[in-house]
Amino acid sequence: MSENETSTPTEHGAPPAGSPIVPDPTGPVLAPARRSTAAEEARTMVASTAQGVLASLTSTGDPWGSVVTYGALDDGSPVFLVSRMAEHTRNLEGDERASLVVAEPPNDENPLDRGRVTLAGRVHRPEGEGLAAARAAHLRAMPSAELYADFDDFLFFVLRVERVRWVGGYGRMDSATAEDYAAARPDPVAPHAAGAVTHLNEDHAHNLLEIARALAGFPDATAASAVRADRHGMDLAVETPRGTAWPRVGWSAPIDEPGGLRAASVDLVQRARAAG
Amino acid sequence: MSENETSTPTEHGAPPAGSPIVPDPTGPVLAPARRSTAAEEARTMVASTAQGVLASLTSTGDPWGSVVTYGALDDGSPVFLVSRMAEHTRNLEGDERASLVVAEPPNDENPLDRGRVTLAGRVHRPEGEGLAAARAAHLRAMPSAELYADFDDFLFFVLRVERVRWVGGYGRMDSATAEDYAAARPDPVAPHAAGAVTHLNEDHAHNLLEIARALAGFPDATAASAVRADRHGMDLAVETPRGTAWPRVGWSAPIDEPGGLRAASVDLVQRARAAG
Repeated sequence: MSENETSTPTEHGAPPAGSPIVPDPTGPVLAPARRSTAAEEARTMVASTAQGVLASLTSTGDPWGSVVTYGALDDGSPVFLVSRMAEHTRNLEGDERASLVVAEPPNDENPLDRGRVTLAGRVHRPEGEGLAAARAAHLRAMPSAELYADFDDFLFFVLRVERVRWVGGYGRMDSATAEDYAAARPDPVAPHAAGAVTHLNEDHAHNLLEIARALAGFPDATAASAVRADRHGMDLAVETPRGTAWPRVGWSAPIDEPGGLRAASVDLVQRARAAG
Repeated sequence: MSENETSTPTEHGAPPAGSPIVPDPTGPVLAPARRSTAAEEARTMVASTAQGVLASLTSTGDPWGSVVTYGALDDGSPVFLVSRMAEHTRNLEGDERASLVVAEPPNDENPLDRGRVTLAGRVHRPEGEGLAAARAAHLRAMPSAELYADFDDFLFFVLRVERVRWVGGYGRMDSATAEDYAAARPDPVAPHAAGAVTHLNEDHAHNLLEIARALAGFPDATAASAVRADRHGMDLAVETPRGTAWPRVGWSAPIDEPGGLRAASVDLVQRARAAG
């Protein structure tokens, strides 16, 4: 199989026989959390790496895929620095239409449960202040490119994004408008949260249980662990006598810098105690 | 920067000032090794994973990149299994032209020193015996696809390869003909050699030194380590009073199964002793 452009795998049929029932909350949900939008997810993925695959058009209009490095302007437009001797450079000079795929590293255990985004649009060669901004954006992401950025036979191209398609993994996928993509900001927390999630599970399982019982609507929870965290909140796995639930709990306010996760977690525990 | 389609980075200018001089051999080179061809390198990379990026054409002829899984027929033709609801499936049904990029995982330390291959050609929907072979090839690489391989809304496509472009990393790149690609066989050793290379360096450094002195042409070697191994031979890093050299030494015969590396290494040590 491959990229499924529809909303959920269950559109291909009913859930497999024997799928567990996910229990509903039985208590008040006091810390709801919004999910990141597709535009935010796409911006976060594009900001998380500097390597992708470019699809361009050959002189006969054939689709040509090749590995590229990129940086991104403040509005998320990818900036490429390519050699005049490379085939994709000739392609971009011949036809401005292109798309960039940015993907999480291959997941051998579950190849399709892998985040990726396609940005499609048209490239142009920036000039003047636009060139300076493009150069700075590319070198921010690819400092080693300083060595050849000013060679005559290397060209900067900016991809003006017209279409955005995001797939987060199984059953998590959506499109975003170019305007929403440009206006969104990368998540400062999600790409770096794995260590904090591990710490919460190893040293604060009792606090997560308090949160699950008092704020997430599962007063009958017997255990809770964190699955992932982002700027808006945290996904939990909650054990109850009725089965395992996966509620989401939200911070009091979105986190706007990577170090904010600790204070937001402490605040959530305090809210759980005040409510409990 | 990005995929450089030329032969070496030095085509962009002279080596940086202060680049070390690589010493030449001063003794007989008794174990020369051929390098894998671009066709073999491409087949090896395609066989090493089941995940890539497909470039296809939208109804307006725009290039569209998307993540896909694949298997490969005996001649290396990729086999996709895609949902009718996916955009790339509509693209392939509308225009048979496509390319597949298969790449080593991102290398954050040196993003451009990363192997990748582009296979370009035309897709078709296999029928009869061709369909059975395509199904088997895909499921060999993606066993979990058995779950949906026979759903009505999933289609098999085979990419008939017409062009092959391989990049091994900095300064290692070439094209291959479709005929050479189809006839080549994946390297049974290279994708799994990392552990053996580590073992050689940890426990057999003295043997590697014997090989460097007696077979690789460096009688003045003071230390030697293995860098990588493949079906044809082994790349070494050899320290001499004149600087570091990177010779290649060949097995007596190509290795045709993954377990053959140990016997080939022992044979090389015996040849070194006989020659020394």
